[in-house]
Amino acid sequence: MWADIAPIGRNASTGGYFRQPFTSADSELRDWFRGAAQQRGFKVETDPIGNLVAQWRVPMLNYTDDEPGKGIMVGSHLDSVLDGGAYDGPLGVVAAFAAVDLLRERGFAPSRPILLAAFAEEEGSRFGQACLGSRVATGAVAWDKARELRDPSGTFLADAVDRIGLGDGVPLRLDERVATFIELHVEQGRHLVDRSEPIGVGAGIWPHGRYRFDFTGVANHAGTTVMEDRADPMLTFAMTALAANKQARLAGQRATFGRVEVSPNATNAVPSRVTAWLDARADTQAAVAEMVDAITRKAIERAERDGTDVTITPESVSGAVAFDEDLARWIAFEHDGSDWPIIPTAAGHDAGIMSAAGFPTAMLFVRNPTGVSHSPAEHAELADCLAGVEALAETLQRLAS
Amino acid sequence: MWADIAPIGRNASTGGYFRQPFTSADSELRDWFRGAAQQRGFKVETDPIGNLVAQWRVPMLNYTDDEPGKGIMVGSHLDSVLDGGAYDGPLGVVAAFAAVDLLRERGFAPSRPILLAAFAEEEGSRFGQACLGSRVATGAVAWDKARELRDPSGTFLADAVDRIGLGDGVPLRLDERVATFIELHVEQGRHLVDRSEPIGVGAGIWPHGRYRFDFTGVANHAGTTVMEDRADPMLTFAMTALAANKQARLAGQRATFGRVEVSPNATNAVPSRVTAWLDARADTQAAVAEMVDAITRKAIERAERDGTDVTITPESVSGAVAFDEDLARWIAFEHDGSDWPIIPTAAGHDAGIMSAAGFPTAMLFVRNPTGVSHSPAEHAELADCLAGVEALAETLQRLAS
Repeated sequence: MWADIAPIGRNASTGGYFRQPFTSADSELRDWFRGAAQQRGFKVETDPIGNLVAQWRVPMLNYTDDEPGKGIMVGSHLDSVLDGGAYDGPLGVVAAFAAVDLLRERGFAPSRPILLAAFAEEEGSRFGQACLGSRVATGAVAWDKARELRDPSGTFLADAVDRIGLGDGVPLRLDERVATFIELHVEQGRHLVDRSEPIGVGAGIWPHGRYRFDFTGVANHAGTTVMEDRADPMLTFAMTALAANKQARLAGQRATFGRVEVSPNATNAVPSRVTAWLDARADTQAAVAEMVDAITRKAIERAERDGTDVTITPESVSGAVAFDEDLARWIAFEHDGSDWPIIPTAAGHDAGIMSAAGFPTAMLFVRNPTGVSHSPAEHAELADCLAGVEALAETLQRLAS
Repeated sequence: MWADIAPIGRNASTGGYFRQPFTSADSELRDWFRGAAQQRGFKVETDPIGNLVAQWRVPMLNYTDDEPGKGIMVGSHLDSVLDGGAYDGPLGVVAAFAAVDLLRERGFAPSRPILLAAFAEEEGSRFGQACLGSRVATGAVAWDKARELRDPSGTFLADAVDRIGLGDGVPLRLDERVATFIELHVEQGRHLVDRSEPIGVGAGIWPHGRYRFDFTGVANHAGTTVMEDRADPMLTFAMTALAANKQARLAGQRATFGRVEVSPNATNAVPSRVTAWLDARADTQAAVAEMVDAITRKAIERAERDGTDVTITPESVSGAVAFDEDLARWIAFEHDGSDWPIIPTAAGHDAGIMSAAGFPTAMLFVRNPTGVSHSPAEHAELADCLAGVEALAETLQRLAS
């Protein structure tokens, strides 16, 4: 399965992946999912935003389409950030199929449905909102609202999905279908590699905010305008980016300006506007708010000096997620062999959305030797991936026995 | 004429102009030029890159097409930066026609040809090289090399001109045609407004360099990567932008980072690369080199701290231009009425390219009450524009008497 999807959306020069939502690479991955499900005789459902759910139907269970019974959902996402890695997302989807394959080989017949899921636009790399697919699937974001989102080129989400044959139908009713959600994911940090553990269980997700900083000044000629006469928003942005880094570093938090848009973005023009997005994370929501306040104060202070303006707009703020504690302990400790550590993460995941929507949720992490993620350097060793599949199969078997 | 071209490429929301080279707005302006020339019975010539030359042919002079005699060329450009002003460029072309109209109304018959010019891609806003049209026309850049330039979307210049019906023919041989070049331009600074003078004469152009700074680091997840483990090129860029500003401010020079491109440019990813362009100008070439060296040292110093790399590539470096001193003094002082001040400029102009190519060259500036340029706020009062036209007509009359 890994070999089948490895070339999709891969850039030959960087080795990075460009699996942008609702592009041809994304469609190919969706086709691969449908094929993998159909090959196993699983029914596949989709919804307007392109979330996919395949159902392992066990003949001896007497499902009807009207009332399929609540099941164990397992999955992740297939999209990537621009020039991202191979593992973030797809590893969880491929591992879900592989775990089910293991259970079938072993003749296990689940007592309840097993649902394999691939959620759409998890990275928020195109329409600006992370975990958009799972938000729509859980009703956290209404499909009618999501349709109206635009990508940076101005395309409505409604048109983007329409172009690849999606957009029809109604959102999945996960509340009637799902008892528990499990997501396996490559670790995006160094907890496991530092502890020499191949597998970990998620404790929860740090709260996370995305804030748009609009720095506005006065466009002017870069040659003729003396420095004293300028109102250059690039300077205000630059100082704010440095202040954010310092603030987060001192407090053991995370603050990143990874996306910047400049207008008019010409070499010989002082910009009229610099828009930059702050990604802020800390262990509590109060700590995030405090950090953003401190960065805002620095931005305003510098704007006064530069003669520019700055406005800050929160684009998405996610509260802390604590995964089901009993479930995490049960997965980590109540099994044969050595315990798996319970580790936190500062990355958002569909599992966080599912947990916030009230589904008992757990995450399994697979060791990443580089700790690096959202980059072609993201990696997981095959042996660790297989250990993850085994752990996932074991967990599913115990939940569906 | 001003009313005819005012709507072309104008953005209704900002009031700014988007007259990008080889787009429909640029073609409309070229059509307007051809129409204005034909209406007056002037022959129009073009070359592969779309430079336009109209010739005021006076019946009593016996021109042949083979040897038209060296003439006085007067003109400027029609393209704008993105969201630029109405005056930078077009004022000089419209004023050239208006000055010729004045001379014809007054029954003046020039003793030598008057050539009206509109040079292509003066701003360098699309293919990265300022004054590209006049560089090709003077042979400073070979057309075969210019054809290979690419815009940010990857389009070759050869294809861009082909799409709008240009690209054929050979460059104009200005060396055989032009005795003197005169360019009228809106002032892009405050020399004239500060002296309460409507008109000024150009002394010369500061040397000017464009340098590409490639800051490279390691793409990583903005949530999970602790600040200490990052190699974030955005920080190196931010410190470099602040250092450039400080350096130029202290030395009375100009340093601007107005164009930035980030990869992957995602809110939740530490960037792998930030590319930013430095526009650097000072009164001597040594001063520019010294300033760029100082900024480079700061960039390298910060890169070491950030664990990033920085490489600096000069993209274009123009030496100082001193316009013909005798001609400037003759225009400024040897005429009826009060003298016009002789002022420097830190902006590049086609006149600079013509001067560097050995043509005796002069510039006339029209007062800009805001001093602002490359912005919708760029302005010139009608009375000052008319004074500019009168000054231009007077200059042409004296040169072609």
